[in-house]
Amino acid sequence: MIDINQAIESLDWSKEPKGLYEPIGYTLSAGGKRLRPQLALTACRMFGGRDEDVLPAALALEVFHNFTLLHDDVMDHAEVRRGRETVHVRWNENTAILSGDQMLIEAYRLLSQVREDKLAQTLRWFNEMATEICEGQQYDVDFEQREDVRLDEYIEMIRLKTSVLLANALRTGAYIANASEEAQQALYDCGIHLGLAFQIQDDLLDVYGNPTTFGKAIGGDICCNKKTYLLLSARDHANVSQTERLHHWLSQLPGQEKIAGVTALYNEIGVRAMAEEAIERHTREALRLMDTLPQNEATNALRQLANKLENRKS
Amino acid sequence: MIDINQAIESLDWSKEPKGLYEPIGYTLSAGGKRLRPQLALTACRMFGGRDEDVLPAALALEVFHNFTLLHDDVMDHAEVRRGRETVHVRWNENTAILSGDQMLIEAYRLLSQVREDKLAQTLRWFNEMATEICEGQQYDVDFEQREDVRLDEYIEMIRLKTSVLLANALRTGAYIANASEEAQQALYDCGIHLGLAFQIQDDLLDVYGNPTTFGKAIGGDICCNKKTYLLLSARDHANVSQTERLHHWLSQLPGQEKIAGVTALYNEIGVRAMAEEAIERHTREALRLMDTLPQNEATNALRQLANKLENRKS
Repeated sequence: MIDINQAIESLDWSKEPKGLYEPIGYTLSAGGKRLRPQLALTACRMFGGRDEDVLPAALALEVFHNFTLLHDDVMDHAEVRRGRETVHVRWNENTAILSGDQMLIEAYRLLSQVREDKLAQTLRWFNEMATEICEGQQYDVDFEQREDVRLDEYIEMIRLKTSVLLANALRTGAYIANASEEAQQALYDCGIHLGLAFQIQDDLLDVYGNPTTFGKAIGGDICCNKKTYLLLSARDHANVSQTERLHHWLSQLPGQEKIAGVTALYNEIGVRAMAEEAIERHTREALRLMDTLPQNEATNALRQLANKLENRKS
Repeated sequence: MIDINQAIESLDWSKEPKGLYEPIGYTLSAGGKRLRPQLALTACRMFGGRDEDVLPAALALEVFHNFTLLHDDVMDHAEVRRGRETVHVRWNENTAILSGDQMLIEAYRLLSQVREDKLAQTLRWFNEMATEICEGQQYDVDFEQREDVRLDEYIEMIRLKTSVLLANALRTGAYIANASEEAQQALYDCGIHLGLAFQIQDDLLDVYGNPTTFGKAIGGDICCNKKTYLLLSARDHANVSQTERLHHWLSQLPGQEKIAGVTALYNEIGVRAMAEEAIERHTREALRLMDTLPQNEATNALRQLANKLENRKS
């Protein structure tokens, strides 16, 4: 069995010009869950496929994911990622743009190593997925300027921005292992639900996470009035008095007082339970889809992963 | 015969979210020579291939080229491109980054429509080319900080940044039309020489172009001490007194006086003739390679293009 961390480490970024490749090696060496390539490997194993057949696509998905983080950090002016300086801080913005572009090309280079009889479809899906992720990112940006974002629009945005990458990782792994189209679709849908649960969990942890295990400051989303699952749910379920107080807090400057005020309102309206219910519902749906698939070690590994994601603290 | 301008116009960018796709349509509607797709079509026709077989790759090359311009303009803080505001000026920097990323993905989407039996090789070459162009861009950036750039390093940089795209357009067109490997290679080399001639011509026009036909201000490269074919040649051939005067002018602030001073030195050292000789040599080599190919209308069209590029005024 291929160890995905080892496979990522064995990619060589000691090439010239250093200004182009060093930031790529730096970005990929920061760790992370390696969730996406792991999903591709697991889906492939579920249908008796060989690790080495899915590896190029698995690596392409991880490199692509890290490319999106690199460019997102430039656009968000984020200074820290996984406990280290972001590329545009450590180097500069132009380096982050150009090295990011090269990372996207590297993802396609890895993808081009997929077996020729599986290449065309894998490439088409990868392109669709990449497009949807850019669309999701743009909707996320657009939502900052809109006050009338509906919860279903928010769900669609996180489906594009987060879910389709997990879904495509699972589907591609199954496809390369010659799974039936029904099974490919079931795994794709499973990835969509896992991604939605994952993102709503992210929103929840920002408010209710344990500061010592969460890894970043609590209340970041509240401070910048980010339209999360919690804020949109609170707005949708607030009575007149709660709506008034919510508007008051949204007009305040960032700080502990604002975080405490909004959290108190969230508690009063009961959005924590709403988010937890949504996470549980999407996780349950993902697990139900897994029941329709072949039952083996890989399926169990996927179940464990789903439960781990639901109960994660960071 | 497919009209490449029409084919580019028929690409649909009226999709949602508008913030992602409008800048792509804007960029592609600005015109330009459409040189790269035209080269792919011409090479394909030279070997009796069908326009529709090479069209996806031809469009992918044009979209890719425009993607590089979009991100280069962000990195260079350029405000005008083809007589219009650049994307990061008309919208903003984040839009230019994200829409540029989507353009790169769109290039791959177009490429994925290449016939399945030609896809793997076309994709591998495209990835190599895209990587080399990013490497060339990085060397270009690195050269700004170096005073010891050799002329051969400069030639290698413009080979990467400019030539490989023309070369790959020609090779890909020939490959899709089932040309022999020798013919594919001859066309690739032909594109390399045309690209070098093209870029040295660019350097020349910046100093000796006709202000009324050139389309931009004369002396832009001189003002920012850009290490062009002319400056590096001047440095290599200057005597002691000329070297001293060159250093004097390079230390001056941008302006008409500096442009006049450097141009006078160029005239004295004779770099115009050196650049013209290099352009003529590379064009001649490209034409010699064309003589080794099948002789037909497409070959003649390529000859005309080479001569037109050599004698262009803008």
